[in-house]
Amino acid sequence: MLTLIHHTLCPLSRSIRLALAECGLSAELVEEQPWSWRDEFLDLNPAGNLPVLIAETGEAICGVYPISEYLAESSAQPSEEASGFSLFPGDVKGRAETRRLIDWFHSKFNSEVSACVLEEKIYRTASNGSEGPNIAALRAAQDNLRYHLSYIGHLIEERHWLAGEKLSFADLAAAGQLSSMDYLGDVPWEVNEAAKTWYSRVKSRPSFRQLLKDRVAGLAPVAHYVVLDF
Amino acid sequence: MLTLIHHTLCPLSRSIRLALAECGLSAELVEEQPWSWRDEFLDLNPAGNLPVLIAETGEAICGVYPISEYLAESSAQPSEEASGFSLFPGDVKGRAETRRLIDWFHSKFNSEVSACVLEEKIYRTASNGSEGPNIAALRAAQDNLRYHLSYIGHLIEERHWLAGEKLSFADLAAAGQLSSMDYLGDVPWEVNEAAKTWYSRVKSRPSFRQLLKDRVAGLAPVAHYVVLDF
Repeated sequence: MLTLIHHTLCPLSRSIRLALAECGLSAELVEEQPWSWRDEFLDLNPAGNLPVLIAETGEAICGVYPISEYLAESSAQPSEEASGFSLFPGDVKGRAETRRLIDWFHSKFNSEVSACVLEEKIYRTASNGSEGPNIAALRAAQDNLRYHLSYIGHLIEERHWLAGEKLSFADLAAAGQLSSMDYLGDVPWEVNEAAKTWYSRVKSRPSFRQLLKDRVAGLAPVAHYVVLDF
Repeated sequence: MLTLIHHTLCPLSRSIRLALAECGLSAELVEEQPWSWRDEFLDLNPAGNLPVLIAETGEAICGVYPISEYLAESSAQPSEEASGFSLFPGDVKGRAETRRLIDWFHSKFNSEVSACVLEEKIYRTASNGSEGPNIAALRAAQDNLRYHLSYIGHLIEERHWLAGEKLSFADLAAAGQLSSMDYLGDVPWEVNEAAKTWYSRVKSRPSFRQLLKDRVAGLAPVAHYVVLDF
């Protein structure tokens, strides 16, 4: 049995949870608070970042990049023919485009939007309750999010899925980010209809059901979080 | 012929230049100023980040992650047996460890050290000459660099190369970061003898010679930059 060390609202952890489900793999989930910097967790992953996958053989695979490539390489993953899904489908060129977009969402979207929103709304409050959120930073993140929705809309007007004709880890990386922001009610879906339609398709997949059941103690999701036709 | 769009002091570009040389591939280098946000470059790579590899077939592979995986997958790369080098050597577990460390240097080291140093010393001066560097930010980056040198030293006391017994892209990722900081005289080599010895070994490889010839207009490297036994 695989074990995934994650945080419920961590977008990178969410992308791996979606990837595991799309690959037909199940994992026991263990929650870690990334702001705690626990010694036991740092012993496992000196970088202190999430997620960490514990393989059946016991070794820790640390970080979203190593985990995604590990899942693609690992014999544990059913073949693309069997499951109909590959994290990096297509030829060398197609896989490069998939990875460009994975990097877009895991790095650019994450640093321009999610890292700020989570830090201001969740992590800092959890580790230091006395300080309120930085409103200017949250406004900048909100502006950035509009730009990212437009980019998703731009891509999806030319392609069936974000990186091409097949669902790939690029869609799951983007959905991981957006689902975390959507839980907090921070996604202005009205600004881009094409992006909303694409997200609705990802949200309707069986792999997504686990994310819809997520609840953070003391913080309910916005009402439309669980609605497929939102 | 491959073309690599890079900036001389960009650590991520440097890691790809080392990777190309270790793979026995040559590329024409085209300099881009990442602070310029030129429309023509953004048309090629909407994220605006470096490096970008133009394949022989003309398509652009954008970003260090897609390029490194592309080089590993691409038939253009001589086989590991022929060149004796693989970007991600070993078994599935070994490759996961290599990628963990690549991520460490491309993301953690880059954001905690190099991005700050380059922004404060080079990029901002180039785009807005009137503002001096933020001394407090540079001091924090310098403190972080000492910690990263200790981590390299810790790794290399147990292994021949950073990720295991073979040279991998993890070594080149780390060397790309350190060589850029070393050009500016910002590496306190005296704090960790094991890290210095490891760097001296990477620096002595034929793939590194091109980096030693690098010169930025109006900014000479520190004297020991070209010295192998520094």
